[in-house]
Amino acid sequence: MRVSKSEFEPRDPNFRAKVENSFNRQQAMDTLGVRLAELRPGCVVLEVPHNVMFTQQHGFMHAGIITTVLDTACGYAAFSLMEPGAAVLSVEFKTNFLAPASGVRFRIEATVLKPGRTLTVCEAKAYAFLDNADASPRLVASMTATIMAVTGREGIEQ
Amino acid sequence: MRVSKSEFEPRDPNFRAKVENSFNRQQAMDTLGVRLAELRPGCVVLEVPHNVMFTQQHGFMHAGIITTVLDTACGYAAFSLMEPGAAVLSVEFKTNFLAPASGVRFRIEATVLKPGRTLTVCEAKAYAFLDNADASPRLVASMTATIMAVTGREGIEQ
Amino acid sequence: MRVSKSEFEPRDPNFRAKVENSFNRQQAMDTLGVRLAELRPGCVVLEVPHNVMFTQQHGFMHAGIITTVLDTACGYAAFSLMEPGAAVLSVEFKTNFLAPASGVRFRIEATVLKPGRTLTVCEAKAYAFLDNADASPRLVASMTATIMAVTGREGIEQ
Amino acid sequence: MRVSKSEFEPRDPNFRAKVENSFNRQQAMDTLGVRLAELRPGCVVLEVPHNVMFTQQHGFMHAGIITTVLDTACGYAAFSLMEPGAAVLSVEFKTNFLAPASGVRFRIEATVLKPGRTLTVCEAKAYAFLDNADASPRLVASMTATIMAVTGREGIEQ
Repeated sequence: MRVSKSEFEPRDPNFRAKVENSFNRQQAMDTLGVRLAELRPGCVVLEVPHNVMFTQQHGFMHAGIITTVLDTACGYAAFSLMEPGAAVLSVEFKTNFLAPASGVRFRIEATVLKPGRTLTVCEAKAYAFLDNADASPRLVASMTATIMAVTGREGIEQ
Repeated sequence: MRVSKSEFEPRDPNFRAKVENSFNRQQAMDTLGVRLAELRPGCVVLEVPHNVMFTQQHGFMHAGIITTVLDTACGYAAFSLMEPGAAVLSVEFKTNFLAPASGVRFRIEATVLKPGRTLTVCEAKAYAFLDNADASPRLVASMTATIMAVTGREGIEQ
Repeated sequence: MRVSKSEFEPRDPNFRAKVENSFNRQQAMDTLGVRLAELRPGCVVLEVPHNVMFTQQHGFMHAGIITTVLDTACGYAAFSLMEPGAAVLSVEFKTNFLAPASGVRFRIEATVLKPGRTLTVCEAKAYAFLDNADASPRLVASMTATIMAVTGREGIEQ
Repeated sequence: MRVSKSEFEPRDPNFRAKVENSFNRQQAMDTLGVRLAELRPGCVVLEVPHNVMFTQQHGFMHAGIITTVLDTACGYAAFSLMEPGAAVLSVEFKTNFLAPASGVRFRIEATVLKPGRTLTVCEAKAYAFLDNADASPRLVASMTATIMAVTGREGIEQ
């Protein structure tokens, strides 16, 4: 049995601009060289190159850095479905690491599993490309995240 | 009822040097400016300054960056109790975010909850200091992590 | 550094009666033979006997059954700090299993880590007693849970 | 991009009998009335009826009971791919609750995300049927689980 997931309807017609604006204000994304590759209601794809500055002791990308991109992807997948005026915060996330994050670049795909007025649950996967011609990237990490819509809290604008 | 946790006995008398060596090889730690503040068997404390390069859209440190430091702290708390020759990898972790990561610096404390030959479970907390005189830092995040001892796998040296 | 956690102040002077009432309406607790052993603001202790009816394939208590009691403990630790009129629901939880759940009875201790108007984060531990004279029970499982205060939703009364 | 997941190859030609045998020894499954509905390499589907004996305070099935069935489904999805002689234990799991577990029966589907010699990561979903004619069951919970193959440990036979 596969319960088909209907396409998501954004509550904010301006969802694309607000996600892009917010993404562009995340200095961590700029520092890591993350690119917003795809954006649809409830779905975000990000890409990030390997960067030796962010490796762990074996030369792989640090699990926390892959998690950083997974979290941003989940946050904006959720944000794309939120009402106008809401800001977005991560409540919690869990990441499983399935293979070492080695490769020349990584692709992170996040999808909303369950949208909600206050809480939205997202799933995301990270794939590693061994080289630029790699046509079958390897699944390296999987995240489940709970994302919250926040309104009217000081210091947390949209 | 409080079941007292006995002090951990390291299986490797050389635990201090091996943790420091491995920590120093994590380029992500150097890039983020993380300092190894304390190291005891089964316990690691790290400190990291606020850095605008790693902020999210509201100017707080990115949840994934705090998670990166929590993960390293858990990994080395576990590593400090592993047998000689084992390498350390993160299997999975979960982070709850309890308050925005605002402040001038952050202190991350990780402790082994249950050591094991193959798997070690760790808990860690992140605290934020509002300024350098702050004597009551605020709890901003909490992690539980499962860490694995790996031996004899190509490309993953100690 | 240990940041001392001040005692929690219940927002509802009637917190004890409301927790006991709600606990008594959980038929799963009655079926499993769970007893409410302690209740303070932000803290709940439950006890449950071993029961062969709820074992897994090796004769240990099923991980999901221990999780059921951990979840109830977290839910009521959070509920004890909620405002009058709020109902309580579990948003998500994660359990790590540290040792097989063998023993004659189990003690589950839950504490609020961070209370909030909407979301409360709790931590809980499960301990196993090998026999009735066992003075040093073994830690068998650890949970982190996110609990939500719900108001005005049909079918979900306090 | 969808990276196609090839069909899993069981390492044990006897996988079906060993899963069924182990499932039948889980007394918790018999007590809850859980039925093994489907079994393929790396995939398990279970069904469980609503049972007032296992409800929480609002009359929904207890989150921990749904989790119990999700855990068993993940465990046996992983077990179906393990080598002969290995026993199966849950290392950790996380469940997100997406809607109240109300309905006449529930269907739990677990799939291996990443098999491994020691650790296997599984994902599972729980769906609720409002009545017996319900053709579009509702997603009520989602689990990610880490499952371990154990060999040669006393008291833990296959």
